Amino acid sequence: MTELFTVLTPLEAWRRLREHLQPRADPEHIATQDALDRVLAAPLSAPHVLPTFPRATVDGYAVRAADTYGASASLPAYLRLAGEVAMGQSASVQLGPGQAVVVHTGGMIPPGADAAVMVEHTQTMDGQDIEVYRPVAMGENVIQIGEDVRASQALFPVGHRLRPQDIGGLLALGLTQVEVARRPRVAILSQGDEVVPPEKMPGPGQVRDVNSYTLAALARRAGGEPLLHWEIRPDHLEAVQTAAREARAQADLVVFTAGSSVSVRDMTAQVIGGLGAPGILVHGVSVKPGKPTILAVCDGKPVFGLPGNPVSAMVIFQLFVAPAIALFLGTEAPPERKTPALLARNVASQTGREDYVPVRLAQRGSETWAEPVFGKSNLIYTLVRADGLVQIPLDSNGLSEGEMVEVRLF
Amino acid sequence: MTELFTVLTPLEAWRRLREHLQPRADPEHIATQDALDRVLAAPLSAPHVLPTFPRATVDGYAVRAADTYGASASLPAYLRLAGEVAMGQSASVQLGPGQAVVVHTGGMIPPGADAAVMVEHTQTMDGQDIEVYRPVAMGENVIQIGEDVRASQALFPVGHRLRPQDIGGLLALGLTQVEVARRPRVAILSQGDEVVPPEKMPGPGQVRDVNSYTLAALARRAGGEPLLHWEIRPDHLEAVQTAAREARAQADLVVFTAGSSVSVRDMTAQVIGGLGAPGILVHGVSVKPGKPTILAVCDGKPVFGLPGNPVSAMVIFQLFVAPAIALFLGTEAPPERKTPALLARNVASQTGREDYVPVRLAQRGSETWAEPVFGKSNLIYTLVRADGLVQIPLDSNGLSEGEMVEVRLF
Repeated sequence: MTELFTVLTPLEAWRRLREHLQPRADPEHIATQDALDRVLAAPLSAPHVLPTFPRATVDGYAVRAADTYGASASLPAYLRLAGEVAMGQSASVQLGPGQAVVVHTGGMIPPGADAAVMVEHTQTMDGQDIEVYRPVAMGENVIQIGEDVRASQALFPVGHRLRPQDIGGLLALGLTQVEVARRPRVAILSQGDEVVPPEKMPGPGQVRDVNSYTLAALARRAGGEPLLHWEIRPDHLEAVQTAAREARAQADLVVFTAGSSVSVRDMTAQVIGGLGAPGILVHGVSVKPGKPTILAVCDGKPVFGLPGNPVSAMVIFQLFVAPAIALFLGTEAPPERKTPALLARNVASQTGREDYVPVRLAQRGSETWAEPVFGKSNLIYTLVRADGLVQIPLDSNGLSEGEMVEVRLF
Repeated sequence: MTELFTVLTPLEAWRRLREHLQPRADPEHIATQDALDRVLAAPLSAPHVLPTFPRATVDGYAVRAADTYGASASLPAYLRLAGEVAMGQSASVQLGPGQAVVVHTGGMIPPGADAAVMVEHTQTMDGQDIEVYRPVAMGENVIQIGEDVRASQALFPVGHRLRPQDIGGLLALGLTQVEVARRPRVAILSQGDEVVPPEKMPGPGQVRDVNSYTLAALARRAGGEPLLHWEIRPDHLEAVQTAAREARAQADLVVFTAGSSVSVRDMTAQVIGGLGAPGILVHGVSVKPGKPTILAVCDGKPVFGLPGNPVSAMVIFQLFVAPAIALFLGTEAPPERKTPALLARNVASQTGREDYVPVRLAQRGSETWAEPVFGKSNLIYTLVRADGLVQIPLDSNGLSEGEMVEVRLF
């Protein structure tokens, strides 16, 4: 089966997967205050203007701007006090010419007034009149009706990921419920005769399952809901086929993190190949580490065969699974945190292959250096000791010591 | 009361708060697989080495390296097959001189062998012997016992924030429970006669509570647990005092997001001032927007009086509350996402004041530009329309169009 496939570049591989996917975000309604980092499944527009009444932005007096023209410390404008607008209440007074009304920051500007003067630029006289020492322009120190949000204004498009201020903005308009994309379910199937669950003491020749939980955490970060309840199956075809069919039925995406031996890899390919049409689309990607990757679509659901070693699995997850989760959310993968750094030593690569090198950041004086962590990619602690990955592009045969690189932080 | 305080720079203000705080992370035990982004409350070291047995990194044959020296395609080394090590099982054979044992990637290297040859560099003869076409060095294609993690090796210090691969790394060692810092509880008290809950239709002169929910989301992002169950109290001193005392008793940090009028601000200062010793430490910070900020410590707990308008509240939260939450986690605030951009227009500032300007990112050809969003800071949608903030440092009197700036992304 492997012979039918040629190794593709990451971009070619992604395009081939993408063209066989018609993901649809599945909407659900949740409380806006619980919607941080969730992705909108429907566009939102304003149910009403904001603010709904003209508001003072200062503590002071609502006035007619024209009444203050030319006012100065030596020649103040004299205005007659005509009441006060209490906070949280409607203005009960109508402001006439030559009048001033006490207003508080955020309070309503009464009808008849078109500006506010700051209390600092005034003095009260006898309790009946005030002196104004500076002119204000029309609209000064006032937020107009609809200045924050206009009527029926479009607020957010489909696919927008909600940030803290967005939640505040929606609640300001009384939008206490939002329609968001359900978190795509990501089934993670680990297999291999040598793999035991973390709570078990491995026997001779056995190791604990590492990849499932690393991948589950990555899936959660990407906005998905990991499903891990498939037992680690012994390497027998039928058991794996049954688990795979269950996973495909229950999840939106299926990720195999296979045992590392060639027999298990071959079986994974066989299981994915039999899981639904069109089946395997990519078998082998020009990425190091991560070449023996399988990308498939089975009955409309993306299925990934990730390499068994931890570094490869993480690289391939970020390259293909995280963007696929984003497709099911109707958005793009959340932007990575990146930082520039100077490469601490030469790193060789091959043209035609995209390399990902784990690096550790080190501060040397005012400079940040990226020191490659040259552990084998079979070692989980190679990733634990690293702060991020440096990409060596497809068309490069390596990077030089002292070169400025961009580190994709974990 | 206000008169006693002079406006401090953000750094001075933070230092004054910091020196009155002795935060202690409160530990709790949780399942490692649920510990993504949690902060360790105790250092962790390895309970055992990893791997616990020598493992093959290739599919092929375990051999003695010396038996392959000088092997080539024209002059292969001949080795006698002495069995197979099944995946997940102990090696039952002892390898003698001139022998080879079938091994799979990740499988155990049998005693007596010191290297592995890849199957691609061999050929089986009669089922009894193999030809080896390339020599291997001692240790080649083998992960040694303890190569990933040494015995008792320090794994993570206190204060480490767990990433996906860290979770995998801990589970690889059977550490299924971890001691992490409890999320600090952040009480958020909103007050103001004009403020109604989001689900209520505001009457004339009223507005919905925006800040509480924006700040709750920011607290969650910073690793805290927001407590919002204090009702929005009318602006009466005793009611606010009672709520404040309850909040201080139940939470680790208390945040007031006050109504915007000067009377409410004064009352907030009075309430915080009476909440415990030493009380108010900072009243006024040279930040725009955000100057009328109160920082206090009351009976060991930090108390924050945030300005009422949304942009100020967010800026001040990130400057002081997020780092204080990190202190209670025993770590530093999670690094912000940043991106470089060209400033799209001149922005004036004052020397001696740190300014934060909301900007929107715009792509022009291959360049990213930061366009200032010049909405009033009373408008929540000023923040909704922005992608991040640009800082204008204390010692600068502004930034120029075309200047390269760093945008702190929301």
